[in-house]
Amino acid sequence: MKINLLIVFTILGLLTTSCSKPSQKDYKDASLSIDERVEALLPLLSIEEKVAQMRIFHANIGVEADDEGQLKLSDKVVEKLKLGIAGIKNPAEHISPLAAAKLNNELQKYIIEHNRWGIPALFVTESYNGVDAEGCTKFGRPITSSASFNPSLVNRIWDVVGREARLRGMHMCHSPEADIVRDPRFGRMSEACGEDTYLTTQMVTNAIKGVQGDYEGLSNGTHIGAVAKHFAGYGQVLGGTNFAAIEISERTLIDEIYPPFEAAVKEARTLGIMASHGDLNGIASHGNPELLNGVLRDQWGFEGYVVSDANDIGRLFYFMKVAESPEAAALMGLTAGVDIDLYAEDAYSYLPEMVKNNPDIEKLIDKAVRRVLRTKFILGLFDNPYVDIDKVEKEVRKESSLELAKEADLESVILLKNDNNILPLSKEGNKKIALLGPLVRENTQVAFEAIKGNTNTFVTEKGFKLTDENASIPKLLPYDAEALEKLLTIAKTSDVVVLFLGGDEFTSKEAFFSGALGDRATIDPVGMQDELIQKVKDLGKPTIVVLKHRRTLSINTISKEADAILDGWDLSEFGDNSMAKLIFGEISPSGKLPVTVPRSIGQLPFHYSMKGINNKKGYLFLENGPLYPFGFGLSYTTFKYSNLKISNTEITPNTEITVSVDVTNTGDVEAKEVVQMYLKDEIGSVTRPNKELKGFEKIMLAPGETKSVSFKVTPKMLEFTGLKMERILEAGDYTVMIGTSSEEGLKGKFKLSK
Amino acid sequence: MKINLLIVFTILGLLTTSCSKPSQKDYKDASLSIDERVEALLPLLSIEEKVAQMRIFHANIGVEADDEGQLKLSDKVVEKLKLGIAGIKNPAEHISPLAAAKLNNELQKYIIEHNRWGIPALFVTESYNGVDAEGCTKFGRPITSSASFNPSLVNRIWDVVGREARLRGMHMCHSPEADIVRDPRFGRMSEACGEDTYLTTQMVTNAIKGVQGDYEGLSNGTHIGAVAKHFAGYGQVLGGTNFAAIEISERTLIDEIYPPFEAAVKEARTLGIMASHGDLNGIASHGNPELLNGVLRDQWGFEGYVVSDANDIGRLFYFMKVAESPEAAALMGLTAGVDIDLYAEDAYSYLPEMVKNNPDIEKLIDKAVRRVLRTKFILGLFDNPYVDIDKVEKEVRKESSLELAKEADLESVILLKNDNNILPLSKEGNKKIALLGPLVRENTQVAFEAIKGNTNTFVTEKGFKLTDENASIPKLLPYDAEALEKLLTIAKTSDVVVLFLGGDEFTSKEAFFSGALGDRATIDPVGMQDELIQKVKDLGKPTIVVLKHRRTLSINTISKEADAILDGWDLSEFGDNSMAKLIFGEISPSGKLPVTVPRSIGQLPFHYSMKGINNKKGYLFLENGPLYPFGFGLSYTTFKYSNLKISNTEITPNTEITVSVDVTNTGDVEAKEVVQMYLKDEIGSVTRPNKELKGFEKIMLAPGETKSVSFKVTPKMLEFTGLKMERILEAGDYTVMIGTSSEEGLKGKFKLSK
Repeated sequence: MKINLLIVFTILGLLTTSCSKPSQKDYKDASLSIDERVEALLPLLSIEEKVAQMRIFHANIGVEADDEGQLKLSDKVVEKLKLGIAGIKNPAEHISPLAAAKLNNELQKYIIEHNRWGIPALFVTESYNGVDAEGCTKFGRPITSSASFNPSLVNRIWDVVGREARLRGMHMCHSPEADIVRDPRFGRMSEACGEDTYLTTQMVTNAIKGVQGDYEGLSNGTHIGAVAKHFAGYGQVLGGTNFAAIEISERTLIDEIYPPFEAAVKEARTLGIMASHGDLNGIASHGNPELLNGVLRDQWGFEGYVVSDANDIGRLFYFMKVAESPEAAALMGLTAGVDIDLYAEDAYSYLPEMVKNNPDIEKLIDKAVRRVLRTKFILGLFDNPYVDIDKVEKEVRKESSLELAKEADLESVILLKNDNNILPLSKEGNKKIALLGPLVRENTQVAFEAIKGNTNTFVTEKGFKLTDENASIPKLLPYDAEALEKLLTIAKTSDVVVLFLGGDEFTSKEAFFSGALGDRATIDPVGMQDELIQKVKDLGKPTIVVLKHRRTLSINTISKEADAILDGWDLSEFGDNSMAKLIFGEISPSGKLPVTVPRSIGQLPFHYSMKGINNKKGYLFLENGPLYPFGFGLSYTTFKYSNLKISNTEITPNTEITVSVDVTNTGDVEAKEVVQMYLKDEIGSVTRPNKELKGFEKIMLAPGETKSVSFKVTPKMLEFTGLKMERILEAGDYTVMIGTSSEEGLKGKFKLSK
Repeated sequence: MKINLLIVFTILGLLTTSCSKPSQKDYKDASLSIDERVEALLPLLSIEEKVAQMRIFHANIGVEADDEGQLKLSDKVVEKLKLGIAGIKNPAEHISPLAAAKLNNELQKYIIEHNRWGIPALFVTESYNGVDAEGCTKFGRPITSSASFNPSLVNRIWDVVGREARLRGMHMCHSPEADIVRDPRFGRMSEACGEDTYLTTQMVTNAIKGVQGDYEGLSNGTHIGAVAKHFAGYGQVLGGTNFAAIEISERTLIDEIYPPFEAAVKEARTLGIMASHGDLNGIASHGNPELLNGVLRDQWGFEGYVVSDANDIGRLFYFMKVAESPEAAALMGLTAGVDIDLYAEDAYSYLPEMVKNNPDIEKLIDKAVRRVLRTKFILGLFDNPYVDIDKVEKEVRKESSLELAKEADLESVILLKNDNNILPLSKEGNKKIALLGPLVRENTQVAFEAIKGNTNTFVTEKGFKLTDENASIPKLLPYDAEALEKLLTIAKTSDVVVLFLGGDEFTSKEAFFSGALGDRATIDPVGMQDELIQKVKDLGKPTIVVLKHRRTLSINTISKEADAILDGWDLSEFGDNSMAKLIFGEISPSGKLPVTVPRSIGQLPFHYSMKGINNKKGYLFLENGPLYPFGFGLSYTTFKYSNLKISNTEITPNTEITVSVDVTNTGDVEAKEVVQMYLKDEIGSVTRPNKELKGFEKIMLAPGETKSVSFKVTPKMLEFTGLKMERILEAGDYTVMIGTSSEEGLKGKFKLSK
């Protein structure tokens, strides 16, 4: 029955096509503009072919390499490709870059040759820590590199991601995440850049510019298109649970949540945007025309495509329950402005049939198809669809990329505590150093021994794991007195103990729709970790903690007991090497917290830029304030801030002012410092944030060296959404603070006059 | 200087008055309508006199009784009263009702005789558990009586509150609280009626009708005016901390937060509304004209006065920082529609001076003064300003009121657990019963011994306290092994142990502006309570827990270990007597939870009516769902629900349907049951709640008795705020559930056709 219908539709499609007036121009003519080529091609397509350009399927339904590495397609895929396809997700992800490049070339060739108009497909990947595929350079996660407070570093990381992805035949990347994540219960926290709007904006725009390379040169085939996600508000799911509803006032959306997306569109020119799983203030994001067409396109001028997050168009019916049927869900998604249906077999697949009863739908379909075709032209796929195989092995995981991963680690680790300057340890200390705890890895000791000139000896013992990796549903492991005893026995005979603590891949992960959990109701370290550090300290041993984790942890006990804490979040594949280098002082840590670390989950929501009134009252029986503030991070040296200067204590809507400070390295090692500028609007017609990061610069200072760091304050930085939901600039007093964290710096005042 | 200015202003005021055309009518003429009397009086007032009618001061600045019980006023008060005054808060609160009535009569007489126009003042109290003054009947707190699910009982309680207040000379009451409280961290949780919009609406409207009596008869002098608070959204302060900002989408405000206030205005005709401390979506409630004038007056037709919450008008300047000066704050509050400035010396006090520069302000002042004067006329104060002293002692704390407090307790206690029907205990059991734990009170044992026919013996020991009541800042007490041992020694030699657990007055309280904390970052029981019950259970003793608390507690250990749990929240002054009666089965418990009890604070926000999507994904390492669901409560009997009937499976915008069910008492004791009706909109154009309580009825059933309970389903119940923020009624399928809690009931379907 389905096949019969398909034939009927195809014939109808052909009839429609033959009746329409084809353009005089040839879409294959590379001398035409992209718009001309799109307009030349679109009318040729049957309705089924058009809708095929609005669907992406996952390679796991039948795209693979056979034993000889040759392309093998399932019947299902063969059938689909006859109409062409918008794209395929993750083809060849589990094979080497070279094999992938070959297979993807073969696949692209097959696709081009098997649809009437020779339309190439988009091959789509993701990137949380490098290209999400076999054999690519593995960097730290986004929240890790965000801690570097070094946007150009992030730009270079994503440049590598873009190049490595393109070299294996990919064209688009469902990354980066532009969400503001403020709830550490949320299992996807590490995929984003932290709690702050400005920091996230800098990181995301640099990621997009990096992965896309030179926008105008995207057709050169060296980089790929970005898809910023998840629009909008996804980082604020209620209770921190994936797929939950979101409640954010319109003002907060505009002032705090939208900016990274707006910059992704306007400044970084992202090719794609992915809608959010979330129900935003009662409206499913995938069915929200005000969001996807209104804000994104009409207000910001976005010209790329919007793709659904997995099956979310279908879910408008069966999960969100805002559509009465799969067909209604498809129409809702289409009307809202979702151009591509990712994965779903029960959503846009209904469109061709629906057009018969409602021909107006085709106009909406045309809009969507234009955007997809346009993307393919921008990427040069019609003219140059294949990867240059010769470059792959030379370029992927090349030395400079691996070095970049290490460099990024070293800039991203945050020194949270360093009592009595216990760090760095001496390389020539001739000490027995114990590397202990659940986050110790197989090669941890090797990494420490690799430190040049090291005369210390190491002993390594994991002791216990945090979770049972063999359980079908992740579960915590029972108390294990024997394991604890084993660790303490080693600690007893060691001079220094380095504890590897935090969380593992099961204590923080994406909660999938299939039922797999990932969000958490507590942010305390799990298992025997607190007891371990307490007992090691009871032995009187100097204790250094290396933290690895993917969500903010309220490390009260660790913070109290440890002599020093190096917080690496989730570093690159070379994480242990980087930690060893930092511990032995080959370089000074220079990372800063991209989040506020609460003392208790009961303090949520808790971010530094909340309104002052939110933090006036603390809680009974709990010390007030954060455990560690946003922007905080120590160094092996000390920095003195002095000489705050404001170029003019008055700013007007048409002028800028400059605020500068002198920063001096008052210690005896060379080190980098992130100089941070925060602005505070003293009085506003709406309640205003306590302070907001509006500038930062990472500088290197030799011992004794002083540098002057200056920031422009522009009227644009002072804008906010007023009482009537208009963008406004209000006359009045402002405080500027330049300092080493969100809680420590030199303050000055200026006035905005209108 | 101030005095000189005052004289100048007074003279100016007199000049103004003498120049204006006074009305021909006499405001003292009781035969005129209230509006006519207001219009006759208003033009006579100087600007200073007008503004005086917009201010309430607290009696603690100098209204007291001297040693002979005669009125004694401070110079400050004498000076203030020369201009008249809108009202005085809490005069005579610490003396007996009779002494208060006499003093308040004297005070009113003084006020009338010392302002030019003889305008009486409003004497204002509050009510959390009865009139907040010496010598009045003490009922359970609002969240306690809400658990009765018995609106007529609530109505009778507040009728007593209204009568007792008026008898001691009060006229207005800054209660009830109409906020929806969904965050147990919030120290004021017990002042409201729980998490549910419908339940709160029923309770609040009945409270207002009770305290106001017959609205048309308010001038008779038997009842007082209500002030519903805190408009709007106050129950949702971020992080559960008082004075914090509030983020609620407009749709949620309209559908879930406003309804109790709307009903307070339209149905219960509350005389007053108090604005909220909160900053609602960026706009300070006291400076929000859309809220106070737009929603309250233009949309709902509210004709009473809006009063500030304490100094909140002044705080627009110095706390909220949305006004640039105290004067700007005053203008902002006035413009927003706040008629009365409570307490502040730095807000409306500036208005007379401001009028000189901006005469238009007087029009706004006139609006506010009209509302205040109107209230005084409604209350009959111009014609009959004094209390009939003879009635006071006969009527306040009369037997029927005290019996009502007991009756309310018995209907409000929730039986959360009763394994093996351990409850009720036999009166003639000849058992040794230990009454133990931190919430045991001085007279607890007396209350238990008072049970008629009791042959058991009791032993009582508090053991330990939860907090140090002598500390300047409340603090938890250290571990006390000796106290624990003492309790266990008693438990060992007892047959049954009743543990009195929960929280004390310091573990849940209002966080005051002065710096006193009250909100909490955890909802676990504090101190040694969990250990106590575990160790008592280890002794193998049958253990009954009596809970007393003012915020929701995640009683995981208690819930696991106790054989039975009676949850009384915060009962009346007769709470122990009521618990004794319930424990010995003089009556069966019939209270139901007015909140969802979470397993962990990490599950917040968590209320039963959240969207279904919110609870689809649970948390790693935590059992899914609540510890106890909303509406839950056991009985000493069992109830069978059967025979669900829907009068018509189709409802239209102009018709109603009836849904009925048979409820049978299948046990062997007489008992009350709260039959609850929940509706669920299966598909909506916006995401819809998982279910919503839309009806309930508390019925009494003899053993074996069956009653049919029916509920009307009206189109109004199915309305919600649609995509375009309009009230809509959508065709489609609905599920109705009638049952014993939000999680257990019989389900049926009907369809709305348009």
